[in-house]
Amino acid sequence: MISKNKLKEYSQYKVVKFCDENGVFVVEGDKLAKEALASDYEIEAVCAIEAWFVENRTLIRKKVNPENIYEVAQADLERISGMKSPNRVWMLVKRKEFQTVNVLGNNLTVVLDKIQDPGNMGTIVRICDWFGIRNIVCSPDTASIYNSKVVQATMGGVFRINMEYTNLDTFIEGCLEEKIPVFGAVLGGENVYTATLPNKAVLIIGNESKGISQNLIDKITNKIQIPNIGGTCESLNASVATGILCSEFARRVAL
Amino acid sequence: MISKNKLKEYSQYKVVKFCDENGVFVVEGDKLAKEALASDYEIEAVCAIEAWFVENRTLIRKKVNPENIYEVAQADLERISGMKSPNRVWMLVKRKEFQTVNVLGNNLTVVLDKIQDPGNMGTIVRICDWFGIRNIVCSPDTASIYNSKVVQATMGGVFRINMEYTNLDTFIEGCLEEKIPVFGAVLGGENVYTATLPNKAVLIIGNESKGISQNLIDKITNKIQIPNIGGTCESLNASVATGILCSEFARRVAL
Repeated sequence: MISKNKLKEYSQYKVVKFCDENGVFVVEGDKLAKEALASDYEIEAVCAIEAWFVENRTLIRKKVNPENIYEVAQADLERISGMKSPNRVWMLVKRKEFQTVNVLGNNLTVVLDKIQDPGNMGTIVRICDWFGIRNIVCSPDTASIYNSKVVQATMGGVFRINMEYTNLDTFIEGCLEEKIPVFGAVLGGENVYTATLPNKAVLIIGNESKGISQNLIDKITNKIQIPNIGGTCESLNASVATGILCSEFARRVAL
Repeated sequence: MISKNKLKEYSQYKVVKFCDENGVFVVEGDKLAKEALASDYEIEAVCAIEAWFVENRTLIRKKVNPENIYEVAQADLERISGMKSPNRVWMLVKRKEFQTVNVLGNNLTVVLDKIQDPGNMGTIVRICDWFGIRNIVCSPDTASIYNSKVVQATMGGVFRINMEYTNLDTFIEGCLEEKIPVFGAVLGGENVYTATLPNKAVLIIGNESKGISQNLIDKITNKIQIPNIGGTCESLNASVATGILCSEFARRVAL
């Protein structure tokens, strides 16, 4: 039985700032909860309806302090959930310290310059997860990986991808010093379908409406673009462009 | 000056059903309004703040009945707008009768089987627009192109792409009779990076969580898949997958 005070406390986690202050993030729904249980993330609390516990009780007991496991009614779940249709389980997961990204140890590293939309952000993490890209480096003003909409859109990628939020000027300078080629999609760039794409590289993805910042454009060594076959549409959605570009890098390896 | 009654009437268009009943759709914001003005769609009404009219008055007078042009205050715009941050202009646009798609006259035709999310739907239309795909055929239960979130996400594609909502079993049967190859992304399909992709084809995109319906899977002549390089992520977002697959068709032409 969960107390009214506890419910009130947990419902505060709908506010991102409250999550920030407490170093946690919220995970909701069957699929993501399973991913959290399978990950090395520490789960601070679980609220779920009976049916979910019937299926997951053994697993959850191994992983979570029993004092913080609550079987709740659907109405309670609706109270603490940030979703329109809460789905069986709500978890509070402890944030992790991400590691500094060492581009030399990776193949492709994706760099996000001011990605704003949580849906795009989560989808980009999901794309990286799909293509085996293990590290994403973000400008400090890129959407937080721990925003609950981002977490949902990653479809579990949040538990597998190493994120770094840092000054991109400094980061890209470091890549250039190490002779890592820096790619970015820019109008007038080389056709990505015919461009030579190396195994080891950095790919910058720009803001949804403004594209890549000028100071970073100046540092790109390999300007590319996805050919605009139709010619009537100005741009592709940021996450779709990321998907196509990552796929182009991946297809050179997979072919 | 706009009357209170008019404002009340227009604010009803936030409800999709009201748009459906009146055969119209809502267009908001500078970019989309410009696309509407440049299209052959009939604009039934315009509400905008003074600054917008200063830039667009000549164009708007040519295209819209002066009786239905209203210069409004920002507060009025907020009342009729369905957006969180209304942006200068709101338009009511008359829907068009779409044409029946003749696959023989096209290169690639995209077929949507139960795409539900308005963001995905609009993004897919935008992708088709980018790659010069002029026709999309949808199952009757696919999200409406005239849903205002879909309209926004198309970034203008709504004015350029011909949509058909129809029974997909019958449509695909017709393609097969015409010997048009039917492609679909299915687990265990051929690697899309190495598959032969013809100029003239149909590409089926399945529902976000359930994929392509079994009855349609049975009709696919060419099963393909995007290689899962990472191996930890179960799937790609529907619009990202569409982007990558369309790009694969396009790159054969562009190369």
